[in-house]
Amino acid sequence: MSIPVFYEPNPIASPFLSEEESIHAHRVLRLKTGDPIFILNGKGQKFEAKVDQSTSKKTSFHHLKEIESSEMPPYAIHLWIAPTKQMERMEWMVEKCAEFGIQSIGFFHSRYSERKEIKTQRLEKIVISALKQSKNLFLPSIYPIISFKDLLKQISPKEQEQRLFAYISEPPSLSLNKSLQLNQSYHILIGPEGDFSKEESEILLSNDWTPFGLGKAILRTETAGLAATHAIHLLHEN
Amino acid sequence: MSIPVFYEPNPIASPFLSEEESIHAHRVLRLKTGDPIFILNGKGQKFEAKVDQSTSKKTSFHHLKEIESSEMPPYAIHLWIAPTKQMERMEWMVEKCAEFGIQSIGFFHSRYSERKEIKTQRLEKIVISALKQSKNLFLPSIYPIISFKDLLKQISPKEQEQRLFAYISEPPSLSLNKSLQLNQSYHILIGPEGDFSKEESEILLSNDWTPFGLGKAILRTETAGLAATHAIHLLHEN
Repeated sequence: MSIPVFYEPNPIASPFLSEEESIHAHRVLRLKTGDPIFILNGKGQKFEAKVDQSTSKKTSFHHLKEIESSEMPPYAIHLWIAPTKQMERMEWMVEKCAEFGIQSIGFFHSRYSERKEIKTQRLEKIVISALKQSKNLFLPSIYPIISFKDLLKQISPKEQEQRLFAYISEPPSLSLNKSLQLNQSYHILIGPEGDFSKEESEILLSNDWTPFGLGKAILRTETAGLAATHAIHLLHEN
Repeated sequence: MSIPVFYEPNPIASPFLSEEESIHAHRVLRLKTGDPIFILNGKGQKFEAKVDQSTSKKTSFHHLKEIESSEMPPYAIHLWIAPTKQMERMEWMVEKCAEFGIQSIGFFHSRYSERKEIKTQRLEKIVISALKQSKNLFLPSIYPIISFKDLLKQISPKEQEQRLFAYISEPPSLSLNKSLQLNQSYHILIGPEGDFSKEESEILLSNDWTPFGLGKAILRTETAGLAATHAIHLLHEN
């Protein structure tokens, strides 16, 4: 059997798995005292440890040893997206973005949004599961939904940051490989299926957000989110 | 109301919508004689027409006029993938690949496949729906599942074609942007979650299939399929 992997944000300070992870360790995997486990803290470190005590409420571990660590990558992707009507589409996208690697995914509602509310609890589970599966060492943050207006207030221009938004226009906006400066922190804004309103697009342009296109095909919202994330990684490949 | 789009492979020879499209036209959209419709033939042409008669079994149209046409792109992507256990993951991937644009998606089973059978009927509906939504003009072909052995026999080396397979190895294989020659017909092979067996990888290498990597993260099968498809499009962007 391969060694099971768990997520615990502070394994040094607190040598216990969360209740949810403990249930999995105890009931599903039936781990026993002395069994080896891997622990990811989602902050760039992977540890090896041994099960100390395992009950369905609490699994403790000891002999914690860092076995892998990674620096933050020189660029960061923050995706801000207007959620689709079908939650399933967002769940799928969040999983894929977490597999590719992403700093954070946040949500906003705008004029033509089909969904103004979103529960993030399930998405938080999805990113943890993708963390374990993908061997990435950084857990993406998931942010609750805010309004388009508040989002714009929150993301003011900063050095080493680039703010970009997917813009369907005629003629088409430049693609990401033309508009991206390498090794920045990117805020990527993807509008709802009904797109940004004319007014919203103008606000973004006049606030110096850079428009970008995603090719000739019309992509669904969730496809645009994962395509932008994937494109940024590819552009940083050497 | 925006003009509805239908798929009909031979609108010139046969001025009728299929039964399925007719049901949609008649019962859902309640189209009447004289209403304008768009028709995609999935072979690069878009037509405008007017409804002649509409019943729930058969909708006929007339005044057919080509309003858009597109040449085949100078490169073609043929994805061959070992289907995942959860059919949902394949459905999602097929939709995304059809949105990005793809020539064909075929399936194979190999040593560590979790699924040896696959029903393609639903996937064919998904690509039609993605065709209408994405504004692509070419309908991807969906091929039934065959064995790894038969697949290799079927895809012999040809000029202007490149045969590549996703290979998890140490050191990692070159990424697509290093191994791809532009403007070819690409056969892209993606193995099952359990990967190709050692023997299968050796057969591929000794038959001059080019291995490629998809970055540091371990991607799920369906993510690898859509990432490879998307990467090939990005590499052809100018």
